[in-house]
Amino acid sequence: MNDDPFLAVAIEEAEISLRDGGIPIGSVLVIDDQIVARGHNRRVQQGSAILHAEMDCLEKAGRLHAKDYARATLYSTLSPCDMCSGAALLYKIPRIVVGENQTFQGPEEYLGERGVKLTILDDSRCIALMRQFIQERPALWNEDIGVD
Amino acid sequence: MNDDPFLAVAIEEAEISLRDGGIPIGSVLVIDDQIVARGHNRRVQQGSAILHAEMDCLEKAGRLHAKDYARATLYSTLSPCDMCSGAALLYKIPRIVVGENQTFQGPEEYLGERGVKLTILDDSRCIALMRQFIQERPALWNEDIGVD
Repeated sequence: MNDDPFLAVAIEEAEISLRDGGIPIGSVLVIDDQIVARGHNRRVQQGSAILHAEMDCLEKAGRLHAKDYARATLYSTLSPCDMCSGAALLYKIPRIVVGENQTFQGPEEYLGERGVKLTILDDSRCIALMRQFIQERPALWNEDIGVD
Repeated sequence: MNDDPFLAVAIEEAEISLRDGGIPIGSVLVIDDQIVARGHNRRVQQGSAILHAEMDCLEKAGRLHAKDYARATLYSTLSPCDMCSGAALLYKIPRIVVGENQTFQGPEEYLGERGVKLTILDDSRCIALMRQFIQERPALWNEDIGVD
């Protein structure tokens, strides 16, 4: 638990997804201390293979320029997977704040090698959301991370 | 120039995008020697920050399972960027066939380290499409690869 207000909005997004029958992962893009976009996983809601929370958030942020991304921080309730990490690398987003990395861990070391500053908040709400979801919908979760 | 029929369809997709005022990069997903989806870059057409050709193609393929991706080959007219390479890694797509990597090169070495087999076809049609596009629309191209 912590009081980061942007993580709180990412968690709100995860909870919106869960209420809609989706995967409870949320994301926020912050530039100059303002939220410019928020998103959540849409595998179930839109039958999407690419709209992980971070991707949905980046898509909702729209067409930005390098100077915008250079000032951005990407929040996610869960450690970003290879795809979402790759999107952050493409746009050279310098900072990623992660709610938790206990239920899934993306290529954090590689992100660090490529110069991205990761902050892991180890947030109990994020962990609880994912633990319950994975227990209840293991096949859906495995599909989302490409292992089933 | 070569006679790979799947590359030819990826080039068709690139040309469709170009005719629509978009970025001329196309992609095809092949499973068991059949095209299951085709796509192209939609930055201009849909104002999208995430629909690179490969992402559009994976999205159009829909929700697949690990056993499907395990038999897949992802074609792209251009060397996949960090985001698209990351999507291939997420889904453990074992093979990527690339039209050319002279006008842009993604993280090919990293893909190799992660076990992806890359084939670079060095196709003159793909090179010509990108060379002309980059010359005519440098700002749009730089936006697409996160450098402007």
